[in-house]
Amino acid sequence: MSLRPDVQDLAPDALMSPEQLETALREIGATRYHNLHPFHKLLHGGQCDHGQVQAWVLNRFYYQASIPMKDAALMSRTDDPALRRVWRSRMEDHDGAGDNEGGIERWLRLAEAVGLERDYVMSTRGILPATRFAVDAYVRFVRDRSLLEALASSLTELFAPKIHEERIAGLLEHYDFANERSIAYFKRRLNEAPKDVRFTLAHVIERAGTRAEQEAILGAVRFKTDVLWAQLDALYHAYVAPGHIPPGAFVPEDRR
Amino acid sequence: MSLRPDVQDLAPDALMSPEQLETALREIGATRYHNLHPFHKLLHGGQCDHGQVQAWVLNRFYYQASIPMKDAALMSRTDDPALRRVWRSRMEDHDGAGDNEGGIERWLRLAEAVGLERDYVMSTRGILPATRFAVDAYVRFVRDRSLLEALASSLTELFAPKIHEERIAGLLEHYDFANERSIAYFKRRLNEAPKDVRFTLAHVIERAGTRAEQEAILGAVRFKTDVLWAQLDALYHAYVAPGHIPPGAFVPEDRR
Repeated sequence: MSLRPDVQDLAPDALMSPEQLETALREIGATRYHNLHPFHKLLHGGQCDHGQVQAWVLNRFYYQASIPMKDAALMSRTDDPALRRVWRSRMEDHDGAGDNEGGIERWLRLAEAVGLERDYVMSTRGILPATRFAVDAYVRFVRDRSLLEALASSLTELFAPKIHEERIAGLLEHYDFANERSIAYFKRRLNEAPKDVRFTLAHVIERAGTRAEQEAILGAVRFKTDVLWAQLDALYHAYVAPGHIPPGAFVPEDRR
Repeated sequence: MSLRPDVQDLAPDALMSPEQLETALREIGATRYHNLHPFHKLLHGGQCDHGQVQAWVLNRFYYQASIPMKDAALMSRTDDPALRRVWRSRMEDHDGAGDNEGGIERWLRLAEAVGLERDYVMSTRGILPATRFAVDAYVRFVRDRSLLEALASSLTELFAPKIHEERIAGLLEHYDFANERSIAYFKRRLNEAPKDVRFTLAHVIERAGTRAEQEAILGAVRFKTDVLWAQLDALYHAYVAPGHIPPGAFVPEDRR
């Protein structure tokens, strides 16, 4: 664990101040968030070939499609109507509401823009098993761990706007498929994620009454960074280097 | 799905004969079992360096340690005392009984022989997140899916003796740490796995009364091959090429 010096000097059972807890959270982002992963550097720098972009979009769809199930699992665990009401907006963001088609639909539009069949993507047949294992682990974490940990695991959104900005700029600059319509998902998230995370950060900081609970929050965020990182490790191994695609997974056209 | 021609000619809902089902199972082994994975070729051919062997032993410990939990989950789901009695011997094999120290203890001996601290290995602190996600997916599969699928997921043992023989020969030939005592785990499995799998194969073939149940058996075995394969993909990515070790995972001494 690498916390900043001011937290390391605390006694093991002493409560962190809200500022210290937030600093410790941001330290996790600065050292473990997937914006640091080599796959994202390739993607945002225009160094991914068409098949690699397709593989990323295809696999990441499984994550997108699982998020509202994760959020529903969280809402099923709290008897607080106010918390459920706030959290419900996440499901609207992803599944849609009224004129808003929702993030999953926007992701499918991206998939079509990179030349993937909508039905194939939705079937999740071609995803890497490691993607499924990592994403399912996240949904189950939210189902099975304490409500505080379940809430905290979403706090990687603290670090998301920066990666979305990099991605929007990188995709528009380097890839023919990228335009306002195809990458609408990311533009939208620039507004959605900060709204969600402000509430959640304040909520978990307030509810964590012991150092053990504060450490559980940090553990949940570390777990979530592992979930995100492992997905990119698997993509890199299968589609970048050495390019060992596991049996049954998507094979880009130029490698068939 | 790649079944042999005689099965592909069956109507989609026609029951396979026991021989056809067994042939289809062995076809999965021939195309997806992890003896085909490049990491095992390196390991058994003496091309792994010390840190790579350590990483394999460390990560695979998490699998070994989880197997009896998987078997207990299975036994908790059947009201058949005869099935539970047969299955219980798997827990004895791994956890020990009387003079038999058990497979987990034998694996820890292997870990010590390759220079890992026993307590560090048992803590599972240094394993790859992808290892944890894959292995936990297996335990949960056995908890959550039908009993038939839970039983069938162990049928990768059909393919295990061959890999154990290759491994015993390869480790003894190429690595200084390998001797009768340090690799006792694999020798023992040469006798245990065939005993277990004979029973399970007969049992699931007999219980599968519809083609859908037969397909569920095949799906469970494919799932299990994914669990095994994904663990080696993660090892390869982190410790062979490109050698991107995820944040927080074990770092071999020569890369510190």
